[in-house]
Amino acid sequence: MERLIGVDWGTSNLRAFRFDAAGGVVERRDAPFGVQATPDGDFEAALERLAGDWRTGGGARWLLCGMIGSRQGWREAAYAPCPTDGAALAKALTPLTTRLGPAWIVPGVSLETAERVDVMRGEETQILGAVEPGWSGVVIAPGTHSKWATIQAGRISGFRTFMTGELFALLKTHSILGRMIEVAPSDPDAFALGVLRALDDPAITSLLFSARAEALMGRIAPPSIESYLSGLLIGTEVRGGLTGCAPGAAMAVIGAPRITALMVQALDIAGRPGARSIDGGEAAARGLWRIGQALAEA
Amino acid sequence: MERLIGVDWGTSNLRAFRFDAAGGVVERRDAPFGVQATPDGDFEAALERLAGDWRTGGGARWLLCGMIGSRQGWREAAYAPCPTDGAALAKALTPLTTRLGPAWIVPGVSLETAERVDVMRGEETQILGAVEPGWSGVVIAPGTHSKWATIQAGRISGFRTFMTGELFALLKTHSILGRMIEVAPSDPDAFALGVLRALDDPAITSLLFSARAEALMGRIAPPSIESYLSGLLIGTEVRGGLTGCAPGAAMAVIGAPRITALMVQALDIAGRPGARSIDGGEAAARGLWRIGQALAEA
Repeated sequence: MERLIGVDWGTSNLRAFRFDAAGGVVERRDAPFGVQATPDGDFEAALERLAGDWRTGGGARWLLCGMIGSRQGWREAAYAPCPTDGAALAKALTPLTTRLGPAWIVPGVSLETAERVDVMRGEETQILGAVEPGWSGVVIAPGTHSKWATIQAGRISGFRTFMTGELFALLKTHSILGRMIEVAPSDPDAFALGVLRALDDPAITSLLFSARAEALMGRIAPPSIESYLSGLLIGTEVRGGLTGCAPGAAMAVIGAPRITALMVQALDIAGRPGARSIDGGEAAARGLWRIGQALAEA
Repeated sequence: MERLIGVDWGTSNLRAFRFDAAGGVVERRDAPFGVQATPDGDFEAALERLAGDWRTGGGARWLLCGMIGSRQGWREAAYAPCPTDGAALAKALTPLTTRLGPAWIVPGVSLETAERVDVMRGEETQILGAVEPGWSGVVIAPGTHSKWATIQAGRISGFRTFMTGELFALLKTHSILGRMIEVAPSDPDAFALGVLRALDDPAITSLLFSARAEALMGRIAPPSIESYLSGLLIGTEVRGGLTGCAPGAAMAVIGAPRITALMVQALDIAGRPGARSIDGGEAAARGLWRIGQALAEA
């Protein structure tokens, strides 16, 4: 039978995994052509260039997740509603005929209640790959649009998005606060101060201005402003995310080590120590493999 | 004696008022050269071009407020600490020798406690001009950096800044939400929905993402996203501002009618009807006149 190739294809980046028959990652390749940076928007050619040589004698099956399934991607894959798990997602894949062989796109996941709607695309695969079947707890995927997902017995039962990373980038690049920032190594004390203040006070649109006032009054030095801002925004996310969490819930954080370390520190400050860090690439690979297995068994 | 000319000189705009001997505004001139748009940064030449002909036989005294007193302005005028009023500000003016005649810059106002620092520059003059001597209540100056000021017996006793207008502009211009917005007339229902949600839930960094999710799921139409976002941010400001307000406090809102109307509507939704709207230009003129009077009497 054809071997599985998994592709986590996001807005900015792409990572491809070649699996052996037991789900081990034989090889991994990363590329900077996310959905918004693929030459000519020719996804098929881009994928062939990156991993076409992985087709063996037996051929390959391709499983893609992430923004490649968005309206701006290769083909739109509808959202699967919450609660959901790998088996449910495997039944809702969008098939794709390609010159590389048979391919499928993992759906995003949506949450829709009377009060609130939310969406994710790509994180569902990482989240399902990060936890063991049957696990219950909270998985956090910090980033541009951070996700807090509640897992009940291995299923994503609900989630919430925070625009933490995008707001941080906007403020740094385009706001009056950004003009005051001096590039410098991160300042753990300023970060912790920001987290504490945000945990203590929900008025983040006011707290953000405090970065300017503190600097103008000489209370925070310009090289520490960036860490303070990061603490304010991550602290606000932790405050909001914990509101929906059971007190003793197990917690795991997925992402690059630099990012997960900040989230684990903020959780610690909020009285939730011991969150486990999980590499985002490994979680994506395991999630793709599991959904691929469910597809093979279906 | 020389007549008083008052100038409210902000970041983007400038408005000058020629007073008669009783404080009436004989003439008003507006110009688009705020502190960051003054040709060659030559403030003296710019002011002379705009209002040099206002010097009468008796000459003129000039009183300036706003960002013209910032580090990027004509001369830096130190912040006066809270609590403060017109008489206190008149004693803390920064004198300026100009070829137009004697001039003074009104200081900004700072708040500094163990937990919190804040600053304003320009709004103090509008706020003091908006209320009668001896008045007590809350004055709101919505804008790029909205101010909520508590007034006790005519003095500014405390205040808080919200980055509402700047965040709205950043999100519209540079964020993933901005790309979904369609230019359209404002939608009062979408605005009210945003206000209600923000009053109900402090997690604004998550609520902002709901604009995207609601649009992707077809629950809010693209032409209504901008009003919904505006409601979320103004509702968040109202939620935070009211936290520090006495339940029955009188409320006044200063600014351009289009802006004050949104704030008055949001206050109404929050169960605080009857806030009075005051034109920002008129408040600035009256504030400059009162500080000028206190200077003359000193």
